[in-house]
Amino acid sequence: MSLGNTPGATRKATSKGLVEIFTGDGKGKTTAALGAALRASGHGLKVFIVYFMKGGFPYGEQKALSQLPNIKFARFGLEGFVNPNNVTEAEKEEARKALQMAKEVIFSNEYDIVILDEINVATAWNLINIAEVIKLIKEKPEKVELILTGRYADDKLVELADLVTNMTKIKHPYDKGILARKGIDY
Amino acid sequence: MSLGNTPGATRKATSKGLVEIFTGDGKGKTTAALGAALRASGHGLKVFIVYFMKGGFPYGEQKALSQLPNIKFARFGLEGFVNPNNVTEAEKEEARKALQMAKEVIFSNEYDIVILDEINVATAWNLINIAEVIKLIKEKPEKVELILTGRYADDKLVELADLVTNMTKIKHPYDKGILARKGIDY
Repeated sequence: MSLGNTPGATRKATSKGLVEIFTGDGKGKTTAALGAALRASGHGLKVFIVYFMKGGFPYGEQKALSQLPNIKFARFGLEGFVNPNNVTEAEKEEARKALQMAKEVIFSNEYDIVILDEINVATAWNLINIAEVIKLIKEKPEKVELILTGRYADDKLVELADLVTNMTKIKHPYDKGILARKGIDY
Repeated sequence: MSLGNTPGATRKATSKGLVEIFTGDGKGKTTAALGAALRASGHGLKVFIVYFMKGGFPYGEQKALSQLPNIKFARFGLEGFVNPNNVTEAEKEEARKALQMAKEVIFSNEYDIVILDEINVATAWNLINIAEVIKLIKEKPEKVELILTGRYADDKLVELADLVTNMTKIKHPYDKGILARKGIDY
């Protein structure tokens, strides 16, 4: 429940950008980050999304995002899925490029909200070094809101974050053999 | 994690619309529904959002949604917050109107995805009758994807749904006294 729904909460603007984490095994992490981007764009805030591990997909979200002038994005990652037990140097290189892009965007002073999509997984699987992510969080300009998505958020990141939601899978159509659907899941 | 990320999952379109529920006490339920709407609109799918309990807020999301031609919405609910221990007849009337709108939209054959925002709360607090919600889920046209959001999703709804994510609050800035922020939370 967003605070907007909380009985008795008066609304107050704050200029301090928080660190939000959406993690867990349920559907809704990237989707919620996307919703946050959409909401922010409605207020004229500038959003940048760095996709860490989504190389080959024709995501509907990216087509939709292209229609929204306040939202920019950059996509990294190779075609196919990363095998955590056999990460390739090329995959690491993509993730490092994503992290470099994240740094540039965060320190550019051009964006109010920066979404680091699947950075939790990239960190958990050692595609990038967690020390660099921690440094980024600690040194970010105060006004920038950071949203980190992906399963396996490290406890150190959770500790640094202001808001953490664990999206827990109660039921997923995948369990019934229904696969991802265009327009709905990607 | 959306299925698009699942290693080994080949993607297959299905014409059957599922029933998804985003519930729990964490941030991200309405936000994820919003992201789903955005993603779908990128594929040219038609989306309708019925807000059950959001009368008075100048939600940024609604401004943003107005820019997207494939997304329509209708908002119900009075100014101020509903007190579950003292629900007024006027509040019930708003929720009933929202449910009536939901029925019209779902059976209109004009929309691929219908989002019923905060319907779980409206049901849990008896603003509307759960039997009517169950009937709606059971009788909806096959192609319509339904997304139900809000805390307190009833077990009967969870049982009927194909996908259920529980958004669990691990940390929320509200706990530190930081209130909802324009552009970020509403």
